[in-house]
Amino acid sequence: MSTAEIPHDTPESYPRTARTTPTRARERATYDRAFVHGVLDEGYLCHLAFVREGAPVCLPMLYARVDERLYIHGSTGARPLREAGEADPGLPVCVTVTHVDGLVLAKSVFHHSVNYRSVVVHGHACAVTDEEERSTALDALTNSAVPGRADDSRRGSPKELAATAVLRIDLEEVSAKSRTGGPNDEPEDLDLPYWTGVLPVATAYGEPVPADYLAPGVPVPGYLTARGRRLR
Amino acid sequence: MSTAEIPHDTPESYPRTARTTPTRARERATYDRAFVHGVLDEGYLCHLAFVREGAPVCLPMLYARVDERLYIHGSTGARPLREAGEADPGLPVCVTVTHVDGLVLAKSVFHHSVNYRSVVVHGHACAVTDEEERSTALDALTNSAVPGRADDSRRGSPKELAATAVLRIDLEEVSAKSRTGGPNDEPEDLDLPYWTGVLPVATAYGEPVPADYLAPGVPVPGYLTARGRRLR
Repeated sequence: MSTAEIPHDTPESYPRTARTTPTRARERATYDRAFVHGVLDEGYLCHLAFVREGAPVCLPMLYARVDERLYIHGSTGARPLREAGEADPGLPVCVTVTHVDGLVLAKSVFHHSVNYRSVVVHGHACAVTDEEERSTALDALTNSAVPGRADDSRRGSPKELAATAVLRIDLEEVSAKSRTGGPNDEPEDLDLPYWTGVLPVATAYGEPVPADYLAPGVPVPGYLTARGRRLR
Repeated sequence: MSTAEIPHDTPESYPRTARTTPTRARERATYDRAFVHGVLDEGYLCHLAFVREGAPVCLPMLYARVDERLYIHGSTGARPLREAGEADPGLPVCVTVTHVDGLVLAKSVFHHSVNYRSVVVHGHACAVTDEEERSTALDALTNSAVPGRADDSRRGSPKELAATAVLRIDLEEVSAKSRTGGPNDEPEDLDLPYWTGVLPVATAYGEPVPADYLAPGVPVPGYLTARGRRLR
């Protein structure tokens, strides 16, 4: 990423804080804004953690990034969305996005590992009420899972929009971790007879399955067939 | 699952509690033990949430199930593992496992959805100190990501085992949610021109990449080549 693409008031890294500094494997941590954005933009499923009655709760949610904001959405009746709307200055949350890239097989069990990229966001989830921001966020959420889809479907009616809560989490306290490459075995283990290396892992997509009520002849849109990794 | 496979004192469902009862989409929730085990056994990556200084923390971790217990492990120096070892009766945690099976494209944005299966476990993470249980758990953790691998690698030395913390979470307060099938559009939207259906999603595996120090002629083990879905 060239510095020309970064607004002048946005440093290239997120500031490091006590809770974004790992106690170990610090060499796997990064605060680089472009790396964080890359990890976030590749995915659409996050795990959202919050505290309810003193105990942790962790739920899978869809998300989208718009600049330095993450958005999640759901029914206005869903508990976490309702709680975030009522809390001031928002519900304390931790949002984590993880991509597994490979299973790392070493000679020894101890050095088995996983190649991955993850982003952890600490912040507050706040209800978005501004209609323009809600509209931008909802389009981004649709396009996060299926890029190009927002413009190729019927957008929300007033009634549907009224039933949809949108939450924003500002990207302020953010860190990423990653591991890449092959196994790192002990020198004295190198002659052991076991296969060692990496089994690549990725999310992949199958052939689109039309709805049973889809009229014949409607072509599969290019944004689906052009989708990255395919299942065989 | 036949009832003959279930010990007589184990009911077929986990008991429903206040926090495992969703406020909405209850029809997507299940407490069926065999369904929960199936979701857990298909994966190896969980998101572990806990509370630190009043705020939620959510981290990706490997896990394994052994009967009615989940195990996670890590360095004895890692913060969450240290905190769990010191807490009595363990660190309150929420462990969530999610599989995305498909992106559901409806005529309207509002009815877009995701086909998925997820399990949420509420409980306490306790340090495992019994050597036999630790050994069983560590083998299960190795085999969780790569079934068959524990017997085909060098097991931990006393020094390596001393540096490894193992935590247990009992499967007591557990629920699953899932969505399957095609989109559910409003009757008045059915004639809209947009493609509708499901884009299947799955985790897939590539060709194993040998370590640069692997001696020539070591065959790729069958437990890697036999691995389910493949990338193309």
